[in-house]
Amino acid sequence: MKKVRFGLIGGGFGALIGRIHKMAAELSGSAELVCGAFSRDPNQSKKAGVELFDIDPNRSYPDVETMCLTESTADEGRRAEVMIVATPNHSHFEIAKQCLSSGFHVVCDKPMTVSLNQTQELAELVKETGLSFGLTYNYTGYPMVRQARRMVLEGQLGEIRRVSCEYLQGWLAKDLSENKQAAWRTDPELAGPTGCFGDIGSHAENLVSYVSGLEMKEVCADLTRFVPGRKLDDDGTVLIRFSGGARGYISASQIALGRENDISLEIYGTQGSIEWKHSDANSLVFRSNDEPLKLYRSGGPGEENMSRDHGLPAGHPEGFIEAFSEIYRNFFENIRDDAQAEFPSVMDGVRGMRFLETVVASSEEGSVWKSLEGEVR
Amino acid sequence: MKKVRFGLIGGGFGALIGRIHKMAAELSGSAELVCGAFSRDPNQSKKAGVELFDIDPNRSYPDVETMCLTESTADEGRRAEVMIVATPNHSHFEIAKQCLSSGFHVVCDKPMTVSLNQTQELAELVKETGLSFGLTYNYTGYPMVRQARRMVLEGQLGEIRRVSCEYLQGWLAKDLSENKQAAWRTDPELAGPTGCFGDIGSHAENLVSYVSGLEMKEVCADLTRFVPGRKLDDDGTVLIRFSGGARGYISASQIALGRENDISLEIYGTQGSIEWKHSDANSLVFRSNDEPLKLYRSGGPGEENMSRDHGLPAGHPEGFIEAFSEIYRNFFENIRDDAQAEFPSVMDGVRGMRFLETVVASSEEGSVWKSLEGEVR
Amino acid sequence: MKKVRFGLIGGGFGALIGRIHKMAAELSGSAELVCGAFSRDPNQSKKAGVELFDIDPNRSYPDVETMCLTESTADEGRRAEVMIVATPNHSHFEIAKQCLSSGFHVVCDKPMTVSLNQTQELAELVKETGLSFGLTYNYTGYPMVRQARRMVLEGQLGEIRRVSCEYLQGWLAKDLSENKQAAWRTDPELAGPTGCFGDIGSHAENLVSYVSGLEMKEVCADLTRFVPGRKLDDDGTVLIRFSGGARGYISASQIALGRENDISLEIYGTQGSIEWKHSDANSLVFRSNDEPLKLYRSGGPGEENMSRDHGLPAGHPEGFIEAFSEIYRNFFENIRDDAQAEFPSVMDGVRGMRFLETVVASSEEGSVWKSLEGEVR
Amino acid sequence: MKKVRFGLIGGGFGALIGRIHKMAAELSGSAELVCGAFSRDPNQSKKAGVELFDIDPNRSYPDVETMCLTESTADEGRRAEVMIVATPNHSHFEIAKQCLSSGFHVVCDKPMTVSLNQTQELAELVKETGLSFGLTYNYTGYPMVRQARRMVLEGQLGEIRRVSCEYLQGWLAKDLSENKQAAWRTDPELAGPTGCFGDIGSHAENLVSYVSGLEMKEVCADLTRFVPGRKLDDDGTVLIRFSGGARGYISASQIALGRENDISLEIYGTQGSIEWKHSDANSLVFRSNDEPLKLYRSGGPGEENMSRDHGLPAGHPEGFIEAFSEIYRNFFENIRDDAQAEFPSVMDGVRGMRFLETVVASSEEGSVWKSLEGEVR
Repeated sequence: MKKVRFGLIGGGFGALIGRIHKMAAELSGSAELVCGAFSRDPNQSKKAGVELFDIDPNRSYPDVETMCLTESTADEGRRAEVMIVATPNHSHFEIAKQCLSSGFHVVCDKPMTVSLNQTQELAELVKETGLSFGLTYNYTGYPMVRQARRMVLEGQLGEIRRVSCEYLQGWLAKDLSENKQAAWRTDPELAGPTGCFGDIGSHAENLVSYVSGLEMKEVCADLTRFVPGRKLDDDGTVLIRFSGGARGYISASQIALGRENDISLEIYGTQGSIEWKHSDANSLVFRSNDEPLKLYRSGGPGEENMSRDHGLPAGHPEGFIEAFSEIYRNFFENIRDDAQAEFPSVMDGVRGMRFLETVVASSEEGSVWKSLEGEVR
Repeated sequence: MKKVRFGLIGGGFGALIGRIHKMAAELSGSAELVCGAFSRDPNQSKKAGVELFDIDPNRSYPDVETMCLTESTADEGRRAEVMIVATPNHSHFEIAKQCLSSGFHVVCDKPMTVSLNQTQELAELVKETGLSFGLTYNYTGYPMVRQARRMVLEGQLGEIRRVSCEYLQGWLAKDLSENKQAAWRTDPELAGPTGCFGDIGSHAENLVSYVSGLEMKEVCADLTRFVPGRKLDDDGTVLIRFSGGARGYISASQIALGRENDISLEIYGTQGSIEWKHSDANSLVFRSNDEPLKLYRSGGPGEENMSRDHGLPAGHPEGFIEAFSEIYRNFFENIRDDAQAEFPSVMDGVRGMRFLETVVASSEEGSVWKSLEGEVR
Repeated sequence: MKKVRFGLIGGGFGALIGRIHKMAAELSGSAELVCGAFSRDPNQSKKAGVELFDIDPNRSYPDVETMCLTESTADEGRRAEVMIVATPNHSHFEIAKQCLSSGFHVVCDKPMTVSLNQTQELAELVKETGLSFGLTYNYTGYPMVRQARRMVLEGQLGEIRRVSCEYLQGWLAKDLSENKQAAWRTDPELAGPTGCFGDIGSHAENLVSYVSGLEMKEVCADLTRFVPGRKLDDDGTVLIRFSGGARGYISASQIALGRENDISLEIYGTQGSIEWKHSDANSLVFRSNDEPLKLYRSGGPGEENMSRDHGLPAGHPEGFIEAFSEIYRNFFENIRDDAQAEFPSVMDGVRGMRFLETVVASSEEGSVWKSLEGEVR
Repeated sequence: MKKVRFGLIGGGFGALIGRIHKMAAELSGSAELVCGAFSRDPNQSKKAGVELFDIDPNRSYPDVETMCLTESTADEGRRAEVMIVATPNHSHFEIAKQCLSSGFHVVCDKPMTVSLNQTQELAELVKETGLSFGLTYNYTGYPMVRQARRMVLEGQLGEIRRVSCEYLQGWLAKDLSENKQAAWRTDPELAGPTGCFGDIGSHAENLVSYVSGLEMKEVCADLTRFVPGRKLDDDGTVLIRFSGGARGYISASQIALGRENDISLEIYGTQGSIEWKHSDANSLVFRSNDEPLKLYRSGGPGEENMSRDHGLPAGHPEGFIEAFSEIYRNFFENIRDDAQAEFPSVMDGVRGMRFLETVVASSEEGSVWKSLEGEVR
């Protein structure tokens, strides 16, 4: 069992997400960080490599280009195989393109890029190169989210009628432009055309699509900027009509005072319904009209995930890092074993960007209904 | 302390709501049922009076007209003073008109009527007669809903930005036309132009308005009929823009499998936020970004309701009947003592019907934005 | 359906419990308060009758003796049939004896008396007179407590191994001798030989016995007085060995700061286990090792109580008053219809007093094991 | 920041705990597994090193003695510095002694040994050698458990009166002698003199001591073996009297059907009280009689842990592995930086074994009160 070697782009000082990627990737037990371009400032990049990540100083690169060039030509048994893109949204496209072109598999933060065109171009490139491309829609890594998907796929809910998803945070309720994490997320130059929806609404879209398996047909979005001076949406609700007749909504907010990181999903079918909340991530509620509510638990009876030999027994809570790690575990399995393990792919990225662009267009044109046109190729 | 004497219209065999009205009105300690027209079938009406309500058989009337005539001319110390209208929606207007015209105060189930015109006509009549008119928006009777309202009014939330309210039931997920309660609620002839929204969305509208104190300016509604053959909406979501800039939504469903009677409300302001759920009705969550979450409890520290000398100590849960009873307590106080106790009034009815008509119009015209035009007089 | 007429002893100004008895008894729909001796001060008694209870001023009696004499000789169709004893513990015995001797059925607050001897003497009197005697172990009135009992009786838990029950309140964490309710509960002259255990541990004992159906064999109790100057226990834990081999404990406290009125019960068998909490009284958790947790709900699927035609549908929470009312409903049914409806009886009182006496003896002798000797006749 | 190198003893095939130690130790970011003696079967040990842990095959040793000898004489920059003891209880003593004697720091699973004498002998050896010795009382690694301790230390609860702790599991409700994990835990030869209490009651004792800071003075224990044929306790409750007057209990069970791994703690003082539950590990409830309940959250407002720069923001749940990792983080910090970071030490081990021996003695002598004699040196 040879460990997969990966490099990290971004995630230097002040960026929690770098540490999370490393912990999540390494916790899977099958990978190790070997190099990085952690900052656009070469000195900071080197320093981060040493101080934050304890890697060989020669492999903290001043920029992505140098890293791609050097690593792609290093010894086969030593060079990085995967590049992780953990930079602000606006740079995902160029960096991912470069990594793919240099022969690296890529894991990229969401949203995949800042436009549908960019996303589709990357999708083409992935197809051409035959490389793997994963996206960190990490909430799909929770055991109970996977259980929910299986229950839907197996028809335990019957035909789906109603889907709702909320993602509530409160940390951007005030202007936080001095905060590095807040600054780029609220800056159109770095975050792209949407703030709250790009940052967290994107997770909601993916969670809805992943668990329900439904395709969105039309949306009507009402996005708002509440904080004075803010240039991007910090709150919004989107009505959704799905192919096949189901209806629902996604509501996301970063001004929901006192809310932490509360993503939740409810799906109602003709035979049963499910509810999952991030604040109680190891539980899944199943309801029907005919039987008492059932509570499924990570590692507990009725959890059907065959591949969870790595999971903990019930009552040993699996947290954010463990869920994130699931995404990596599957991604690495795919690379190493040519396995068919599921992970959020470039197609999720295309579908996600189409959603974001349509939502922004709907809202800007007066909150009118817009079709999610075109196939997701 | 003389008890207020009331009559009941509707609420006979098979109608839970009759028993609830009686229990709630009498639990307030200040009223007693003395007469009724419990059914359109005179025999059934008489039988119900004796078997269900244990009243004087001579005061179980064959119809509303007879009751109004007889009671309004009876001895002053014995005759009914208040009439409770607990019939299907379509008949509220005529019955309430007759009761008011005969000099009775009225308590009416929601929605007030089946059209804004009818509601406004009744509102005029209330003004003219000087009688009291209450509506059973009973969720506003919970101590923690009142606490929420006070906290909003006192500015503890700051300026309100986001309001959301869900009301989920599952019992109409199948065609239940054989069930008397389901039958009238899904029949346009009896329920009026809306099903789910008239029945429970109306409560949501009132709860939002009562607690937030905000005025709705525009709505965009997407109502659906999921159950084959159903003639009225059984699910829907409404985007809302409030005067002053707040945004939000109301979502209601009667096909949400396994859901019981789950109305919940969240309000987010610039200084704090609150969350209340009917499934944990004696609690109120207050959140901010600066302090740990606070949980207020009925009868517990921080509950500021001065008039709750009748409440139970914390930890003695107050249920559905007790909340319903609060509405009656305040209504009766008003009548008896000319007090200024608050109860859902005819103005709530007008505002509620305007909401319902606008929601239906929005949805029927393709889920477009519609203004809630005109003042609520 | 003729209403049962009852009188109330105690429950005057400043005593919440009087109002609760009246509401609970009348909410059952089958009874009405007709007379009372509400205070040992004749003027206060009369005043309470008028101001608190709105009864005929001639039927507010100056003392129990007068009431018993007058009412027992009044017209058959008018006189009280049941007397409710809601006075401090020390007076239960004499009052109940007088009521029974005068031919009244009795409903008495718990604990039944202040000694096992008194309790047994009353039990004899009940047997002799053939009158009904009920005790307000009101927590057994919750639908989900009854559901729990049924599930145990039907063997759904298998053979019982472990039983635990906690009852936590915080209101007596400080010396509250100026508070009337606190004063008598902490005064050995009025409360009897135990404070916390007599007041709330008694409910715990009854809940354990009612739901588990097990007989206690031996106990080892450690009772404590934490508040300086307090003369009776305000906290304690009792280890219990049941006949048949089950083990467990009851823990009760009135100094558990911030706790409201939190009685909870857990029972573990060889096939399943149940958990019930007063703070979520309309739910009942059923667990096993082989299936996801099931949540039963008042009025929901799987609730098997055949007699609950009076209950509310799921999602309409039934509170403290409703549960209390169940006790009365069954008691009144028994009297009126000679029905076999179950209510906490004099045998529960004897068993309860035996428990309390044994617990006090165990604790006073150094927290040693004591048998619960003798049969409960 | 040089990584600490550690070896693992035990934790081979079929032993979840090996993987947990590795993940937890490495997640701290400051350590790496370099060698191990994973099984008493040399072939299995080698195989586990390769297949489970991906370490240098030459450093999978056939036994502890060989590993100690080889590693202690290897290059200073390469050799293991810490040995982790993850074997069944009975072997902790000999293995730990050998590791300490060979100059290794030790991290050992709880309970520390199978007798107080052994534990004290190891404590002496730790003192003599000056090496660090940590115990995996991992529940003390949760942020909210640390918050609870700080709140107690700072006097936010006032003087402590009542402490209770439950630890409930259901997995041993049946005879599972074919299951490797169950087999050794229920075998006196391998587990020592106590089953359930040694395995999980030991965690409860440590949690109580860590958070309350109180010293136990006397205990009265009632331990039981419910499963036919079982040789060690699988359930029990212990009454506790603390120095200073506080009272309370610890109850633990491994036959509590349907319970997962549910350890919970409540502490009641004169000014406030706290409640923590493993099933909601990122929350801490603070109650008083004067203010609404406050809910502290990992990473949320009011969390005062200065050293939590490595923690995740609120709403990103930290699970079992993260808490376990905290123990390692502090232990490694101590070794590397001579820091004063707190971790469960050999003194916790001595106190814990004294508790277990006293509990067993109390129960075996008829559940009598026993003093926890002697100082914990």
